[in-house]
Amino acid sequence: MMSLTIDHIKKAGERLKGVAIKTPLATNHYLNELLSARVYLKLESMQHIGAFKFRGAYNRLCQLDSEERKRGVVAFSSGNHAQGIALAARMLNIDATIVMPSDAPKLKLEGTLRLGAKVIEYDRATESREGIASQLAESAGSTLVPAFEDYSIMAGQGTIGLEIFEQINTSQEKLDVLLAPCGGGGLLAGASTAVKSLTPKTQIFGVEQEGYDDHLLSKRAGSRVKIVEGKPTMCDALMATMPGKMTWSINSKTVDDFLTVSEDEIAHAVSFAFLRLKLVVEPGGVVALAALLEKKIDVVGKTVAIVVSGGNIDNKTFKYCLEKFPNPS
Amino acid sequence: MMSLTIDHIKKAGERLKGVAIKTPLATNHYLNELLSARVYLKLESMQHIGAFKFRGAYNRLCQLDSEERKRGVVAFSSGNHAQGIALAARMLNIDATIVMPSDAPKLKLEGTLRLGAKVIEYDRATESREGIASQLAESAGSTLVPAFEDYSIMAGQGTIGLEIFEQINTSQEKLDVLLAPCGGGGLLAGASTAVKSLTPKTQIFGVEQEGYDDHLLSKRAGSRVKIVEGKPTMCDALMATMPGKMTWSINSKTVDDFLTVSEDEIAHAVSFAFLRLKLVVEPGGVVALAALLEKKIDVVGKTVAIVVSGGNIDNKTFKYCLEKFPNPS
Repeated sequence: MMSLTIDHIKKAGERLKGVAIKTPLATNHYLNELLSARVYLKLESMQHIGAFKFRGAYNRLCQLDSEERKRGVVAFSSGNHAQGIALAARMLNIDATIVMPSDAPKLKLEGTLRLGAKVIEYDRATESREGIASQLAESAGSTLVPAFEDYSIMAGQGTIGLEIFEQINTSQEKLDVLLAPCGGGGLLAGASTAVKSLTPKTQIFGVEQEGYDDHLLSKRAGSRVKIVEGKPTMCDALMATMPGKMTWSINSKTVDDFLTVSEDEIAHAVSFAFLRLKLVVEPGGVVALAALLEKKIDVVGKTVAIVVSGGNIDNKTFKYCLEKFPNPS
Repeated sequence: MMSLTIDHIKKAGERLKGVAIKTPLATNHYLNELLSARVYLKLESMQHIGAFKFRGAYNRLCQLDSEERKRGVVAFSSGNHAQGIALAARMLNIDATIVMPSDAPKLKLEGTLRLGAKVIEYDRATESREGIASQLAESAGSTLVPAFEDYSIMAGQGTIGLEIFEQINTSQEKLDVLLAPCGGGGLLAGASTAVKSLTPKTQIFGVEQEGYDDHLLSKRAGSRVKIVEGKPTMCDALMATMPGKMTWSINSKTVDDFLTVSEDEIAHAVSFAFLRLKLVVEPGGVVALAALLEKKIDVVGKTVAIVVSGGNIDNKTFKYCLEKFPNPS
């Protein structure tokens, strides 16, 4: 596969049928009134492992041949990709080894272990996860599965775009705007390819947290920009510091623009999702909702879909958000 | 209407189409593995106002004639029925007055006010809400809308049963067991009527919290039993002390048995729903899940649907549950 097309995504959809959860597309009266818009929330927080990453992982792993399956897979991830690979591997009877930072959220670490993967921890400050993972893969002859720089991974995530279309019933209602969180850009590349192919006029926005706005800066610069990591963030799922080469080759064309939200805006959105939507969302999963609540773009009168990409939030972080914004609106 | 039939429920379904949210029927990998069953969760926490009560309220109010609409409606409720009536009334341009206990959850009180209803508070210990509400209705000539003793209300709640069937795809999978929370019995009467009509072999259970097991006691006694209220409970939505006369005339025939869960079991289920299902549920809304988690009935190998009836939980109660059971499983 030398590019990503709607056909790849449709094929991924067939592979995931009956395997991934066709997650709910929710609407909420309060939110619609607040924004004077029709907002649909694609709840990947309710996907297996509590995040969309299972889609790409399964789509990638199920295409390995029997020889490759025997030799196992290796991945590196702070948590959601790790759990996605771990579950897909278990379903397909493949050994999985995951390289995870030692400061990964406990919930994600435990989830990965519970799913039967072998976890190797590394120090985010001093060690290279890519180096550790490559070495592991090479010595065991196993397949290294990247989190986003892989067309099969992107195609799997892109099935979210297909499902949104199916669920909105676009014969009756046209999708004006799509917003999705943006870390490495895999979800966005998949979803934007699907959506731009189905309705080219839909405006697409990627959303990043402050201090990690490498996609926004790349868009402005006209080529990939690497930022300096350092700023603490609640969004462990969105800590990539540079757009992927492959994802950027797509997103630079399919994504209309990028938006940035602050840590406080994210904490507020977590509390809003709790109180108003009855949803548990993780910081990295709620950035698109935060962008809407903060009116970063004008959506009045429009039909808007947002991807709520994950719900794996620790007890402590959740309580912090609820205490900081006890009465969100 | 002198009884409740599947036809009444189907008609209610037509009235609610495009008005109520067709709430998601969720499944979860972790839960299914834990229980060795296929469990479907009907998420009424994601209904308008965060609870199923909107269904019955709208089905009742939309049948008022123009004269009745002009004279307004009166209801009494600790919160979810209040909000359901308030929203339905606003949609239909009807004035609503709600009699609420002064100790009703703040979230529910604010929600009712925000929806434009007039709220009259009373003291649960010394005043009769029925008396206050009747007097109000009489003096203004308005319609008193009960929370469950009304066939149109029950028919509205029963649409949950219809939707579960549609969503499970029962042509391929038969529903073995249905569990629903049981306060006054309106939800259960509606849902059980729908389900027993569609698949008479489905076993149906109502779930109550300890100290409020009036349905269980009535089942054992063979007639309606009133219990003495007093025990503190987190389940403000399930504080009825006696089955309704009308609801019991149905539930005594359609419901196979009743189960009881403790306050700790409920708190654990709230935390489980947070951590494992990424759902915000209120104590009274999660009793059916609690009954499953505590293995009050054997569901191994079965297809089970549970109604998660509401998500209107206060910040404080939610934090209590998460702190009491930080690592639920």
